[in-house]
Parts: sequence; structure tokens; C-alpha cells
Amino acid sequence: MSTVTCDLAITLDGYAAGPAQTLERPFGEIDTNTLHAWHLEHRARHQAEHDAIVGADAYVMGRNMFAPRGDGPWPDDWIGWWGTEPPYRAPVYVLTHHPHAPITLDGGTTFHFVTDGPTLALALARETAGSDGRVAVAGGVTTVNQYLAAGEIDELRLHVVPFTAALGSGPRLFDGVGPIDWHATTGRWTPDVTHLVYRRGAAPAD
Amino acid sequence: MSTVTCDLAITLDGYAAGPAQTLERPFGEIDTNTLHAWHLEHRARHQAEHDAIVGADAYVMGRNMFAPRGDGPWPDDWIGWWGTEPPYRAPVYVLTHHPHAPITLDGGTTFHFVTDGPTLALALARETAGSDGRVAVAGGVTTVNQYLAAGEIDELRLHVVPFTAALGSGPRLFDGVGPIDWHATTGRWTPDVTHLVYRRGAAPAD
Repeated sequence: MSTVTCDLAITLDGYAAGPAQTLERPFGEIDTNTLHAWHLEHRARHQAEHDAIVGADAYVMGRNMFAPRGDGPWPDDWIGWWGTEPPYRAPVYVLTHHPHAPITLDGGTTFHFVTDGPTLALALARETAGSDGRVAVAGGVTTVNQYLAAGEIDELRLHVVPFTAALGSGPRLFDGVGPIDWHATTGRWTPDVTHLVYRRGAAPAD
Repeated sequence: MSTVTCDLAITLDGYAAGPAQTLERPFGEIDTNTLHAWHLEHRARHQAEHDAIVGADAYVMGRNMFAPRGDGPWPDDWIGWWGTEPPYRAPVYVLTHHPHAPITLDGGTTFHFVTDGPTLALALARETAGSDGRVAVAGGVTTVNQYLAAGEIDELRLHVVPFTAALGSGPRLFDGVGPIDWHATTGRWTPDVTHLVYRRGAAPAD
């Protein structure tokens, strides 16, 4: 069966985005720079991690990761935050309550809109990735928590930035997720961000 | 002025202890082993970090770090969780509402009980440590959050274990603490625990 990974950039206090998301501020009250300067501005130092993030065979993402927050459908001309050539270069299954025709963009990215829930979205992504392939849960944190709680994420890769968000509200990583057995498989400290990789289950015997 | 450091072992989801603390389970619903196996069982791999934790010139700790949870005074013969020769080997100022005579133990540790609040306790510890010395805020997490919110902690050293506590309630690191400027000064990944050191303020220019 395909492997499911999840990369998430989080603050020291466990936030991956803030409230009050808008078109101008995709991460709400947290500056994009706070969470993502390490790969947006200093990519050369983090090329391997960046390549791993965008190297999956299929993706699942929450609705608010695709479009600005709102209960209704998004504007007709909205194609996501990433412009005409998104970095995914693979099918991306977007969880939403609003049916929408697929959006095919340059470089191999097609956004598919799934209205039948996260279980079906993941099944579609697994089918696309194939049994030897990899599916990435791309975010946001509510979607990640949902798949963690369902036991679907095999490898969690956290990118911990040296900031606290101090929001006092809003979803944090692991909120509502029950106990999970993890083991740490690898990690790398840098002044910009600490990369931590955890795999589900007990560590293999020495 | 003396430097104030804080070492805290935390789970991936930010817990340093669980509810339901008892004499048998000083970390409540979290196993002591979960948070502390790295230095209790594998100290040789983490000797430098262990030495730094117990190398301060004076300590401040919360009441529940000294004695099992409860609102009243603790039993007359209680000398803390650490036996007759605690690892601190320096004065330890314990925050409490209950006056108690100092307890002097082997190896240089004396527990002093401070009923006039955290500001005074820290002042006493700073006085003891001297202007070139180091004060450590030893925990628990509520006490750490209090001193973080007051802007008193210069260096925060997190020891992140590869477990989630999944408690769903109880204090987490940074709860109620406002925004703080940090920079990452050093870090070290190991399979047991990731050591992360943050210092208050902006990073020094290159």
C-alpha cells in the first residue's frame, strides 16, 4: 500500500497557521515568513527537505489550504495560492463541500475537488500514487489532525521554526488526536528550522 | 545580572507532565519514562545536557515539582522526590503558599520555601547565584509559563521526546505566554530526544 507522509512547518508552540486567513495573508495572523522563510528565502540550506515536500506522487489538502477561508465557493478564477505552475506536479485532492471541475495547471499539477470526505480523498490519492508510491497530506493543520486521528499518516515530518505564535486559540498540531506510537527516525538542526522525522510504530530493533 | 535558564523535557505536543499527579507518578498520566528515559536510562548519550540541567548556581521550582499535588501542606517527613542527595547541589527556592523551614540535604542542596510569590523567589535565587551566576527555573510547566510571560527566562532549552501525550487538557508549554522573540542558538538530534536551545531576542548579526 502507498505510504502516507505529512510535512508541516510549525511554530515552537505547535501552530501551523493563524486565524483570520485572508487572500493577502494565507497563514492568517502568523506571517508567512515566520513559518516558511527557511525554504522560501534559504532554500539552498534546506533543499533536501524541500524536495521531499514536493516529491510525492499525489496530495490531499484541506479546503483552506487551497483557497482563502470562507464557507461558500471560491471565486471562479481562483487557481490556488501557487500561481500557474504549482510546485506539486501531481494530482492534488482538495477536501471541500463545494463541487468544482478539476483545475489543470502547468507542470503536471491538477487540483481535484472531493466532496465525499477525507476517507475517499485519501483513497483517490492512494489509487493515483499506486502501491509503491507516496501520498502527502499537505495541510492545513485541521486536515493533518484528522488524518493523524484516523491513523493514516505513516511518517510525520515536522519543521519547527524558532518562534512562538502565542495565538491563544485556533487549532494546534495534535489537537484532538489520541495517543500515537512514534519513533524518531532522523532529524537535523539548523538555526532557521529544526527538521524532525517521526515514523508510526515502535523503533526497529537494533 | 545573573542569567536565567530553563530546561524542560516535553512531549511532541508540548506537555511536560500530566494531570493526576501522585506520589507514585510524579508526572501524572505521563510515564516518567516517556519524558525522562533519555537521561535516566541513557545518560551517557546526553551527559552534556544533563550536566547543564544540574549545573546552575540556584534554582526556582513550583510547588508541584517539589511535592505531590495537593492544596495543603505536605507531610512533615517529605524531602522532595530526589531522596537524601538531590542532584541540584545548590539552593532551591520552592514556590508555595505554606511556610516551611528550609530543608538541607546531602551534597549541598537546600530547599527554601518562598510564600511571597515568583518575583521574590527569583530575586532570592538571583542574589544567591550572583551577577555572574546562573539561575535555573526547574519547572513545572505552570511555573515555566509564569516566568516566560514575565520575560525572565533568557535561555530556554527544550528536550523534545518522540511521543505525544494526547492529554486533551492540562497546561502545555507556552499556554498564556505572549509573543517572545527567540533565536535558535544550538540543537542536537538523537533518536531518544531532540535538544533545542533558544535565546531571547534577535540572533546576533553574522
